[in-house]
Amino acid sequence: MSDFMKLCMRRQSCRQFADRPIEREKLMACAEAARLAPSGCNAQPWHLYLVNKPDELVKQVGLATQEGGGNVNMHTAKAFFVITEEYAKLIPRLRCILDSQYFAHGDIGALAAIICFEAEAQGLGSCILGVFNREKLCELLKIPVEKRIRLMVALGYPEDAAVRDKIRKPIEEILTVYE
Amino acid sequence: MSDFMKLCMRRQSCRQFADRPIEREKLMACAEAARLAPSGCNAQPWHLYLVNKPDELVKQVGLATQEGGGNVNMHTAKAFFVITEEYAKLIPRLRCILDSQYFAHGDIGALAAIICFEAEAQGLGSCILGVFNREKLCELLKIPVEKRIRLMVALGYPEDAAVRDKIRKPIEEILTVYE
Repeated sequence: MSDFMKLCMRRQSCRQFADRPIEREKLMACAEAARLAPSGCNAQPWHLYLVNKPDELVKQVGLATQEGGGNVNMHTAKAFFVITEEYAKLIPRLRCILDSQYFAHGDIGALAAIICFEAEAQGLGSCILGVFNREKLCELLKIPVEKRIRLMVALGYPEDAAVRDKIRKPIEEILTVYE
Repeated sequence: MSDFMKLCMRRQSCRQFADRPIEREKLMACAEAARLAPSGCNAQPWHLYLVNKPDELVKQVGLATQEGGGNVNMHTAKAFFVITEEYAKLIPRLRCILDSQYFAHGDIGALAAIICFEAEAQGLGSCILGVFNREKLCELLKIPVEKRIRLMVALGYPEDAAVRDKIRKPIEEILTVYE
């Protein structure tokens, strides 16, 4: 079994974080892994806002994910990546037939997952978040309000590091093999 | 540096494959890594069509990616994952406010990247493809024509295994740190 498969088995959404700060170099490793991510036409249509300090700002960002009634313990996270979708410059052949942002949503999904894998490799817990008060985040982080915040990733040391059983569809249900 | 970071540095789009078959267990490892992927509300809104044999079918699938004038050597790939977007069952709280497929596009972007990472871990080359003749693929693979094929992943042993320099924006351009 590959190291990466072991990482896939360990990575899980962490929704309660320990009161322990994250070393800056671990966060920068997550950012660097994200920088190397693939994207359609290598457009890299993203900007990452890494909120690590001050504590009060980190907490406010966490609270901005809870207004819909979910993410109940997200204010315990010690850092957040807030990811905006930026203009995607496609290659000339595609620029005429596809919307510039056609691949960007999927690209950012991959980016968020990559941050989680590197976090896991660094011993950190992570959780991808897709529901948040966008206007509040823009205000807190001074992001222009017209920007599209696609996803967030919450990070911290997990309160409970035990690996839970994964609930997934069986392989037969999601895979058709031609051979 | 983590094993995962090393994998991020090695993974690159492979666009010319060697004439060497892929061991079935390596393809199944890619499928299993995909099965464990995260998704919004754990909806797992995907189905994977793995085209490994017969050779003529694999080649026809590769040719179906070339009709737009790109992917010029994709017919040399030895296997393809064709990924359809399926219904995403969101949790009740979100089902009323978000379209069921709101997260699916990003989820499938992550899924495709995960297949590429496991492929790289297995010594295989990979390339995510987003442009193809959808109707042709549906016909070849007997996929209902109304299905949304989101992405494909081409796989095979690379013709040239040398790791190229990655062309990416510098970290200062894509990252804002609050601290």
